[in-house]
Amino acid sequence: MIIVISDSATDAQVEQFVKNMEGRGLTAKAIHGDSKRVFGIVGDTGSIDAESLMRNDAIEKVMKVTAPYKLSGRSFHPDDTALSLLASADAGGPKIGGGFFAVAAGPCSVESEEQILTIAQDVKRSGAALLRGGAFKPRTSPFAFQGLGLDGLDLLKIARQKTGLGIVTEIMSTEHLGVFEKDVDIIQVGARNMQNFALLRELSVVGKPVLLKRGLSNTIDEMLQAADYVLSGGKASVILCERGIRTFETATRNTLDISAVPVLKNRSHLPVIVDPSHGTGYWDLVYPMSLAAVAAGADGLIIEVHDQPARALCDGQQSITPALFDSLMSRIGKVRAALN
Amino acid sequence: MIIVISDSATDAQVEQFVKNMEGRGLTAKAIHGDSKRVFGIVGDTGSIDAESLMRNDAIEKVMKVTAPYKLSGRSFHPDDTALSLLASADAGGPKIGGGFFAVAAGPCSVESEEQILTIAQDVKRSGAALLRGGAFKPRTSPFAFQGLGLDGLDLLKIARQKTGLGIVTEIMSTEHLGVFEKDVDIIQVGARNMQNFALLRELSVVGKPVLLKRGLSNTIDEMLQAADYVLSGGKASVILCERGIRTFETATRNTLDISAVPVLKNRSHLPVIVDPSHGTGYWDLVYPMSLAAVAAGADGLIIEVHDQPARALCDGQQSITPALFDSLMSRIGKVRAALN
Amino acid sequence: MIIVISDSATDAQVEQFVKNMEGRGLTAKAIHGDSKRVFGIVGDTGSIDAESLMRNDAIEKVMKVTAPYKLSGRSFHPDDTALSLLASADAGGPKIGGGFFAVAAGPCSVESEEQILTIAQDVKRSGAALLRGGAFKPRTSPFAFQGLGLDGLDLLKIARQKTGLGIVTEIMSTEHLGVFEKDVDIIQVGARNMQNFALLRELSVVGKPVLLKRGLSNTIDEMLQAADYVLSGGKASVILCERGIRTFETATRNTLDISAVPVLKNRSHLPVIVDPSHGTGYWDLVYPMSLAAVAAGADGLIIEVHDQPARALCDGQQSITPALFDSLMSRIGKVRAALN
Amino acid sequence: MIIVISDSATDAQVEQFVKNMEGRGLTAKAIHGDSKRVFGIVGDTGSIDAESLMRNDAIEKVMKVTAPYKLSGRSFHPDDTALSLLASADAGGPKIGGGFFAVAAGPCSVESEEQILTIAQDVKRSGAALLRGGAFKPRTSPFAFQGLGLDGLDLLKIARQKTGLGIVTEIMSTEHLGVFEKDVDIIQVGARNMQNFALLRELSVVGKPVLLKRGLSNTIDEMLQAADYVLSGGKASVILCERGIRTFETATRNTLDISAVPVLKNRSHLPVIVDPSHGTGYWDLVYPMSLAAVAAGADGLIIEVHDQPARALCDGQQSITPALFDSLMSRIGKVRAALN
Repeated sequence: MIIVISDSATDAQVEQFVKNMEGRGLTAKAIHGDSKRVFGIVGDTGSIDAESLMRNDAIEKVMKVTAPYKLSGRSFHPDDTALSLLASADAGGPKIGGGFFAVAAGPCSVESEEQILTIAQDVKRSGAALLRGGAFKPRTSPFAFQGLGLDGLDLLKIARQKTGLGIVTEIMSTEHLGVFEKDVDIIQVGARNMQNFALLRELSVVGKPVLLKRGLSNTIDEMLQAADYVLSGGKASVILCERGIRTFETATRNTLDISAVPVLKNRSHLPVIVDPSHGTGYWDLVYPMSLAAVAAGADGLIIEVHDQPARALCDGQQSITPALFDSLMSRIGKVRAALN
Repeated sequence: MIIVISDSATDAQVEQFVKNMEGRGLTAKAIHGDSKRVFGIVGDTGSIDAESLMRNDAIEKVMKVTAPYKLSGRSFHPDDTALSLLASADAGGPKIGGGFFAVAAGPCSVESEEQILTIAQDVKRSGAALLRGGAFKPRTSPFAFQGLGLDGLDLLKIARQKTGLGIVTEIMSTEHLGVFEKDVDIIQVGARNMQNFALLRELSVVGKPVLLKRGLSNTIDEMLQAADYVLSGGKASVILCERGIRTFETATRNTLDISAVPVLKNRSHLPVIVDPSHGTGYWDLVYPMSLAAVAAGADGLIIEVHDQPARALCDGQQSITPALFDSLMSRIGKVRAALN
Repeated sequence: MIIVISDSATDAQVEQFVKNMEGRGLTAKAIHGDSKRVFGIVGDTGSIDAESLMRNDAIEKVMKVTAPYKLSGRSFHPDDTALSLLASADAGGPKIGGGFFAVAAGPCSVESEEQILTIAQDVKRSGAALLRGGAFKPRTSPFAFQGLGLDGLDLLKIARQKTGLGIVTEIMSTEHLGVFEKDVDIIQVGARNMQNFALLRELSVVGKPVLLKRGLSNTIDEMLQAADYVLSGGKASVILCERGIRTFETATRNTLDISAVPVLKNRSHLPVIVDPSHGTGYWDLVYPMSLAAVAAGADGLIIEVHDQPARALCDGQQSITPALFDSLMSRIGKVRAALN
Repeated sequence: MIIVISDSATDAQVEQFVKNMEGRGLTAKAIHGDSKRVFGIVGDTGSIDAESLMRNDAIEKVMKVTAPYKLSGRSFHPDDTALSLLASADAGGPKIGGGFFAVAAGPCSVESEEQILTIAQDVKRSGAALLRGGAFKPRTSPFAFQGLGLDGLDLLKIARQKTGLGIVTEIMSTEHLGVFEKDVDIIQVGARNMQNFALLRELSVVGKPVLLKRGLSNTIDEMLQAADYVLSGGKASVILCERGIRTFETATRNTLDISAVPVLKNRSHLPVIVDPSHGTGYWDLVYPMSLAAVAAGADGLIIEVHDQPARALCDGQQSITPALFDSLMSRIGKVRAALN
């Protein structure tokens, strides 16, 4: 931790500060330049609240030297993590990360048995490894369709049984933790809950991988700290998902931050995927942005696919048809081959 | 709802769309101009998902005519809502909204009995109506101080008993709903949980006012829809709190959107308060920004006050001392007098 | 143009508004629904200032139906524009857009004859069509290195003569228009000048293509309106360049909006390129983001290449070496092949 | 300047870096902690490009210790600057800054002699010190009304002659520098030109105060660096103007950053004013936000006033009437009295 002293600070204030640090078992090493008095604080600075330190009139600026995340970082775990996507799978089952690539596809929300089965069979045929589909839907308005709930989960299980696809679906409340632990292959935490710390803590002791979506206004470092919450219990693993951030641009629903992919992969050992459907909000941008994500090094994608998008109960605008998904999967294969 | 037809749409597609609307019991009234074909959709458009409509190739744009919020809006409830701040209070107790002004003050987190009592007595003397203090703290990192939990709540209750101040503190998990309903005067929902819809729904059937903080990247209309969740159960009331939004500027912790105060008051009947501590992140900005909030028409403030800010366990950088708070309260009184 | 009437407007106010529109030669067609009174304004609405209309108390909202840009849009010019990159070239010379792909490469700023010649020869060998290099540098501080000015331009001309590469360099002031028209192949307008309308107007009568960079906080539609300025004089053509927008994220210098590529190509006939160097700010992100831009459909790239990045007079952090550029160009070729 | 060494750097690399610094006449003082190797660079670090330094593989992070601005900062000039608003005025004329408060008011654009005279007389009567009015208008589209140009300037001069108000109007091109120097009291640089460095440099040798508006996506520190450009020539002075930044919120045209007022006043000696008209985009927010700006410590305001806002050729939506302006000026007087 680096401390820049205010120009107006007296020598007595500075001495007092140095003593204060020593009282906490730390050493303040002076590196005064011509224009500024600066100290490097050496020792276990984790015990200091940088913001409270700033309250000292003698201090102008506090700069942190170490990364704010731990368990999700490469210092802690240098090699890529490869995760098995199906709890039941043997060693040969589908994986993600560490060179393995996987795609989750399916409708915004589960609407009926026929709908989810049709789509599941279609995306399976095109090469998806996971079926996505909302049972509990986070909706901005309390008066909008909220999903089929537990009935939706049952339909997802039927689709898994018939297709062998793993299922990934969003959890919205700790009250469903038991059901999700039992029935779901990958538990999704939505963008609006990325900093729902109570939920993250509970998930950390559940033995299922968590697909953690980036919050709409969260930095990459905050996302890795949220992953730290999930990893802190020792039982769960994490897949990081870039899904667009909120900016001033209105031509797209969000601004899909493709550069988050290489940045996350530099900083973290966890698999990184991209959601081009929520990330852009428009079906005709899903195809080019999926290819862009792959070219940037993503370990996978999560894509909304609907057989009748214009009649979807939600998010039809950003869903692609099974036919376009099939064409996209084939193109992704070619681009991935060109990258190696 | 207004529908703009794509330039490339055929007459057959347009006819099909008009029939589709009629099939849903709606009327599509044509208002074709020289350059664009436009329809106004009349009827109960609440049943249509605008985004799925957009999936129709014949449609270029869908524009909504009505506000997305209901219960929190002035169409539903034209007059200002004045809320009693203390559950136990008789008609003469402290209120907020509808001309009543109130201030909540106290430390970021409850640290000890001595600390919370000292601060409570100080802010009471200066005219605060509510004591704020965190028992459960939402921290970006799982390795940071997380608050005293239920013990912190007990200390707040002691402070209430000794001072008569109501207490406002943040809930982070539905598991504590029972305790909060019993022990807390105003239940705070933090910025990171503004769209934790499961929590909002549960709060809607609890008979305590909810202090709802604006999410870091949430629009004013999304905030009013979140308030709709809390109001939808019929038991809870809401105080809206502007606390800064996330922008590119780094000179302040967040950008405090003071203009949200008059905008919210135009659109909603609910009381609107401002948090200049989190909104700016620096104690020396709390004084001018509190006055700015009052001048813009805020019904109240929530301010971090700590007797030893440089030793605070969190947020010391943005906490003011009891002495500065006292001076601020006196100045607020003068500015409020100048506004009438 | 769609007009939503305020709930509080009287019938007399509405009649007055309809007469007002008729007085301007327009027709106001009513499409009143159950909850809102709405009008479609038909006729040449270009003469109405939408914002001043909003000042009428009877009006709640004004919604525009037509796109705000013209000359750069596909309504005006449906087919892709393919531009010749060298003024002097015959029909077989390098082109961009309409299926043609081209890369500009070179140092942030021209530093010396040896430097620019070395780099020019290197990037030429790897397949670049244009040499980029700043002679006049826009620097945030007046005390930072401002470029070699006209001397830098002379060095670029020497490099062009020796390599055959076209040169693209930034204009900062109308006073240099004459020199740029004579000596430069593509005139670059920097992000900070995207809405320097006086400069854009002057460029519109110069017969050289303009490489127009997106402003740090400008929307895609504003960028197309800026292109309209350049196109309005009838002599200049435009290459659109996405180079990152300003968001809250600090892990990258800007957030490179790759989705702007397909959006721009949907809306406009102009060639679209991407600058991954300024867009990310870090050399190790240039490689993956270049590939992402290509996969998303970009017609070209502009990349900072420096033979000694750690000694560059500016932007060394985001410059790649000639060796990495060579490897990147080869990989781009493979990815482009995979896209067809 | 603080340098954090990469975990992967070898001792040889670190030695090489230390020698490199010494070769530039600087000293690298080690302050190695337990987990990170850190150096403080002492000497004239102005000669080092921090970004190019980052290109060294051995370096993980570069942190700057000193503020990036100079002439506009308080280190350079501790006391508040008070500026005379009228070139012709004697010592007793209107001033701004250093305790002096002044308001500029008038229409978005000069439309006719009758219009500008009527409004000038009205705002003069209410206590304005300056008449604002656009002669050259920066418009997003080349097809929108661009202002009356030099004819508009002539009308402003007539209004000044009749009322004694100083005039402030926007310059868009260096070609008009001569006319502006002769005829205008305060030369306005619009938000879109805040980083038009060529224009700023030319203004630095003109002996008229510059009203510098904050760019839509510019930080406070960048604004002070832009002020440094204007101050660098030694002849011009600067008034800083907060006018709203671009965020995701669409309820207001921009987000007016009132906290920029106390931050700018902490960092700079220059007068700071606020533009609540462009800052919010809606006339009914101008009144509360003007009061908020005053309460936060602004030295002045610039407000759009139009006698017939619904017929204004631009920006009618955000213009207040002379009657409301008069009421506002009276209320501002009361709030200012309450602040002392």
